[in-house]
Formats: sequence, C-alpha cells, structure tokens
Amino acid sequence: MNIFIVLAHPEIRSFNGALFNTAVETLKAAGHKVEVSDLYRMNFHAVSDRSNFATVKDPDYFRQQVEETYASEVGGFSPEIEAEIKKIEWCDLMIWQFPLWWFSVPGILKGWIDRVFAIGRTYGYGKIYETGIFKGKKALLSLTTGGPKEAYEKEGFNGDINAILRPLQRGVFSFTGFDVLQPHIVYSPVRISPEERAEALNAFAQRLQNIEKEEPVEAGRF
Amino acid sequence: MNIFIVLAHPEIRSFNGALFNTAVETLKAAGHKVEVSDLYRMNFHAVSDRSNFATVKDPDYFRQQVEETYASEVGGFSPEIEAEIKKIEWCDLMIWQFPLWWFSVPGILKGWIDRVFAIGRTYGYGKIYETGIFKGKKALLSLTTGGPKEAYEKEGFNGDINAILRPLQRGVFSFTGFDVLQPHIVYSPVRISPEERAEALNAFAQRLQNIEKEEPVEAGRF
Repeated sequence: MNIFIVLAHPEIRSFNGALFNTAVETLKAAGHKVEVSDLYRMNFHAVSDRSNFATVKDPDYFRQQVEETYASEVGGFSPEIEAEIKKIEWCDLMIWQFPLWWFSVPGILKGWIDRVFAIGRTYGYGKIYETGIFKGKKALLSLTTGGPKEAYEKEGFNGDINAILRPLQRGVFSFTGFDVLQPHIVYSPVRISPEERAEALNAFAQRLQNIEKEEPVEAGRF
Repeated sequence: MNIFIVLAHPEIRSFNGALFNTAVETLKAAGHKVEVSDLYRMNFHAVSDRSNFATVKDPDYFRQQVEETYASEVGGFSPEIEAEIKKIEWCDLMIWQFPLWWFSVPGILKGWIDRVFAIGRTYGYGKIYETGIFKGKKALLSLTTGGPKEAYEKEGFNGDINAILRPLQRGVFSFTGFDVLQPHIVYSPVRISPEERAEALNAFAQRLQNIEKEEPVEAGRF
C-alpha cells in the first residue's frame, strides 16, 4: 500500500515521535511505500489564508471557498499545499499521529486540515460522504491522551472518546469519503512505566503489520 | 460586565466580521467593557511551542505541560500569551466568533486555545470542571456554518450540531469552569439574502442586549 503519515508534535523525541518512527519503520519493513509530513519540523504554516494559493481570483475580498474552487480549476495551489494534496491523492491509507489537545488535534494539524482539504479538489459540489472524492482510501487516527482510559468512558469525566473524535472521523474522514479504521489510542503515556511504553510501541507495530487486512469501522458508529 | 471577544476569520469584511462588529458596538452601547482579540489581524502565531514562554525549564527536551507549570509558577509566559490569559481572567463573559471549519474552530483559534489555556494558570492539579479556575464566568460560541440548518439536525447529513460543538463547549469551556450559554448559530449566511443577513445581525444584537440575564445551558446537555 501507499501510506501517508502526518505527525503533529513539537518534540520529536516524545512518545508521539516514537509512535511515528515505529509506524514508518514497521510499514516500510512490511513492504509498503511511506510518505510523511512532520508538521512541526516542516514549520508548517497553520493559518488558512492567501498563502494557500499561487493564484488570486478576487484580490479585494477574500472568500476562501471561491479561491479554493478557482485554484482547483486552474492548478493554483501554493507549492506546499499542492504537495500535501498530492500525498493524500497518492495514498491508500492516511495516518494522523498526534496528542489529543483540548479534545482535538493540535492547532498545527487543524491548520493543515483547513488549508489542504480544499473545496473542488478534495470535496464538494455534490461529492461528500458516500460520494466523497477519497472513496476507497482508509484513514486512521493514532493518538495519545493526557487523562487515563476511565476518563474517556461514557460516564468518565471527559465522556466517550468516540464522541470526542467525531469531528475528525466523521467531519473530515467520512465527509471526504475515507473509510475509518478503529482509532489507535495510547492513554496517558506520561503516567506509565518505560516498560509499558515499550509494550505500547510493540502493540502498535504488531497492529500495523496487518493493517492492510483491517476492516473499517461502520460509519454509523461515529 | 467585562466581555472578551475573540474573532477568527481571515476577512474582516465577512459576515463573521459583521457579527463581531455588531457584538462590540452593541455591548459597548449597553455599558459593558469590551476587550477583543482579532486573531488574523494580530497575526497570532497558531502553533504551540517554545514561543509560548519567556522562561525555559528544560532546554533539552520540550514537555509542554512542564514548561506551562513552570511558567505559571514564575510568571514566565511570553508577553502575547500573558496578554491573552489576562483578558480571560479579566472577563465575566468570553465570546468566540468564528466560521465552523471541519466541525471545529479555524486552526488559528485552535492554536490560540492550545497556547493560552496553560496547565497551572488556567486549569489542572485538581482544578477542572466543577472546581475549574474560571468558575463564575460564562462563555458563548457564536458561529456560522457552510451547510443549512437541516444538515446539522440529528438525522441530517452532518449530524447534531451539539455533538459537533461538544469538544469546545465541554472540552474547553466546561473543563476550565466556564458556564456555557446557548451557542449562537447563523446557518449558511452565504446562501441567504442581504436582507436576511441584516436580520441575523439584528437578532444577534437583540440577544446581546440582554446577555447578562441569560441562564447557562445545563452541563449535561453536551
């Protein structure tokens, strides 16, 4: 498979960095082709604005979807956005590796979503959900949390983790046509032992070795 | 009341800009004190990293919560972060004005959340939810959507808007102790007439004139 991994963590030696490195190595060793976007090390610009585009449709008034539609028609995305869209178009499986910050992705990854998932090229004009442009591709959230697993149960103090991940799994992945794999979650790595963290890396590697055979979660679940 | 309004939209002449201006004018005219953060015009840095801090606890390995805890103890936030935290501490009501992008806030606002809501100073060490540091303050989401209202009903193609807003209302507001007011939503302003948009601005102004008397939504709702 062609696999695209996006990493959003400020410290490459963090446990998120280790999960990312584990994924890259494991998937390459299994014979897959791997492309990555390590957003912090790329200094990825996290703010959606005119920098998304090489072209300008309306210089006086910035309507993002108008500019996106125009750029989709004429190939007018800026090189760094074009490169990211191409990686999504190329891949069979997209993985996002990130720490859950405020019930969501870090700002740098949210900015990446805002800029890269442009109307016209990646969704819209009738092409959403069942008719989504990325139909046939799969997507996987791989994340860590601050709080323990109990905090993310239905009755836990933060509530059901699936409800927390819904804007990402439904709002981005399903919306653009991706099938969604069961999210891979390591709860509270900061509070477990080095041995447990090593086990968690190993469990992720084992899962990834067979990722090609995994069936997606039913869309109704999130 | 002291009211803090955050705006996240790239085009100040947009309908979001108009809602923001309406809020500022209406609330000032009603005798409230108003502070604002217009994130795009401030060129707010949307990526959480060492730029959050004037101090350094560990120069070799960046652990955000360790740096936040230290900065909270010694007053070590960078000036632009300290200014934002002070506005939150000062206010009785905080309003976020934004377009709903990918079931969430724009990246620039997510980055603001990541950087400004620091552990120690704004939450944590036992102080979350019922014991949250911002207890007694209120918060209001004021947003616009691309899709029509029907798309955001329980059986609509995007599903219940309350579920979509949960990571913000529960994950940020309730988590840090804010009481949450009913969100103010203008659906699909791009598809309604200029007269309907003027009416929508008027309705927002009318609501804000009595905002002081509004009761928060019960926390169980989201």
